[in-house]
Amino acid sequence: MISFITIIDYIGTFAFAISGIRLASAKQFDWFGAYVVGLATAIGGGTLRDILLGVTPFWMLQPAYLVVTACALGFVIVFGKYVIHLNNTFFIFDAIGLGLFAVVGIEKSLSCGFSFWVAIIMGMTTGAAGGVIRDVFINEVPLIFRKEIYALACVFGGFVYYACLYLSLPPALTQFIAATGVILARVLSVKYHISLPVLKGQ
Amino acid sequence: MISFITIIDYIGTFAFAISGIRLASAKQFDWFGAYVVGLATAIGGGTLRDILLGVTPFWMLQPAYLVVTACALGFVIVFGKYVIHLNNTFFIFDAIGLGLFAVVGIEKSLSCGFSFWVAIIMGMTTGAAGGVIRDVFINEVPLIFRKEIYALACVFGGFVYYACLYLSLPPALTQFIAATGVILARVLSVKYHISLPVLKGQ
Amino acid sequence: MISFITIIDYIGTFAFAISGIRLASAKQFDWFGAYVVGLATAIGGGTLRDILLGVTPFWMLQPAYLVVTACALGFVIVFGKYVIHLNNTFFIFDAIGLGLFAVVGIEKSLSCGFSFWVAIIMGMTTGAAGGVIRDVFINEVPLIFRKEIYALACVFGGFVYYACLYLSLPPALTQFIAATGVILARVLSVKYHISLPVLKGQ
Repeated sequence: MISFITIIDYIGTFAFAISGIRLASAKQFDWFGAYVVGLATAIGGGTLRDILLGVTPFWMLQPAYLVVTACALGFVIVFGKYVIHLNNTFFIFDAIGLGLFAVVGIEKSLSCGFSFWVAIIMGMTTGAAGGVIRDVFINEVPLIFRKEIYALACVFGGFVYYACLYLSLPPALTQFIAATGVILARVLSVKYHISLPVLKGQ
Repeated sequence: MISFITIIDYIGTFAFAISGIRLASAKQFDWFGAYVVGLATAIGGGTLRDILLGVTPFWMLQPAYLVVTACALGFVIVFGKYVIHLNNTFFIFDAIGLGLFAVVGIEKSLSCGFSFWVAIIMGMTTGAAGGVIRDVFINEVPLIFRKEIYALACVFGGFVYYACLYLSLPPALTQFIAATGVILARVLSVKYHISLPVLKGQ
Repeated sequence: MISFITIIDYIGTFAFAISGIRLASAKQFDWFGAYVVGLATAIGGGTLRDILLGVTPFWMLQPAYLVVTACALGFVIVFGKYVIHLNNTFFIFDAIGLGLFAVVGIEKSLSCGFSFWVAIIMGMTTGAAGGVIRDVFINEVPLIFRKEIYALACVFGGFVYYACLYLSLPPALTQFIAATGVILARVLSVKYHISLPVLKGQ
């Protein structure tokens, strides 16, 4: 039986892959290029995290992430014209994926014996580094360095996670609250146009 | 005595390095920059593979690859004007290198105990990731995401390798057939202008 | 008590982070983006070195580098307009950091059991790779591939280090002489406009 967490994991992977594939299509990439960019967006953050933690990248142990990305590519090929109407849906899926990925990154780092501040950085890396790799591949300045709260939502979720640990809440509840914190921080910052100040150029 | 495989390995490294150095020269890089881009093109794919597999990058165990890249730089400096007349020669050398690198990547992954689908991805990574790093360094959209069959030739060779394993062919024959599969897929796709569909932009 | 080496390490980190943050500000990055670019500039080289050596990235074992980078960001936010008048100061700090980072990279590689030629490459990586990552993030062609002696100063320091080892000088003296060699090579090459030839484009 596939667990609830696994389903959310695949939904997040699908949404991340879609975001990479759509940007690749805007750059006239071929199917292979779009697949690689979609894959890098979906699994790039977790891969960088695992390399930094010194463990085998998660996707090399089971092929599901490659299959989900292939489904995302097929989806964009078949429904290309209509995808734009699903922007809000994908935004929500992406935010849910971000919340889950951040929590997974935090827990994997802690289980490897690192400090909590490393875990927060790894939660952020899991959620946000894939988008940076995507933007490097399509030769654009990474979006998250200039716009909106994205990686910082993962940092916020990290502090929420820490508070839950401090209060000795049960693991499943801690995961749920922290992921919800990430999702809310992301959704509310976009809805109310909350963003960081821009550093003035010289 | 240097084996036949070693000679092919150095020829492939030379051809890969030349491709990086030539693109660097078009961007007015200095000798150092051209050397680094040539080196990244030649050893970048194998380095990424080894990091993902969790082993020491191959070039850190013997300096030959740095020397071959230095020869490639010297070659472009001395024969710069004539290199363009050797385009067809370098294309063949590059294809031979691609075939060898793909087979090396597959075998190293299998010897580390990974599944065959991981080995196919690592064969592709060994052959094609260096060119992606090269294009990131010269600040261009990676060529293999937009044009021609390149990484997919490695994937094709991976399936050929698997078929040979299934038929219990001897290792040396398997290597030869799989590498030939990669080279043929690459050469024929360029000769007959076979390429993947481009993903339509929105 | 904080040692002299540690103080130089933090000064170098600060100077490297400032260089990343200033370039990020010229690209209108927000505070988060500027922080990430500053951090990548400061710790990117050492992180790549540690991944290649197969050890845990140094900054994951103590949070000082994140704090120093945060101070650099605060400095640019508060004194933004005046930073430009400190160009010469930062140039010297950056050169000192380069010298220290190169020596740290050499020693860490040797202590991991690698050959001296690997150690020289790792000294160069520690000193110069952060700037390459910075330039990839801001979507520019890496500066060190086109201008001035920078990474090569680390290579020069590596040969100086080797000469000191050969002469059996005591470790502290070896470190000092090698780092001074890097700093002098860097400062003199800028002062006298010494640079490598540019590779002619075709």
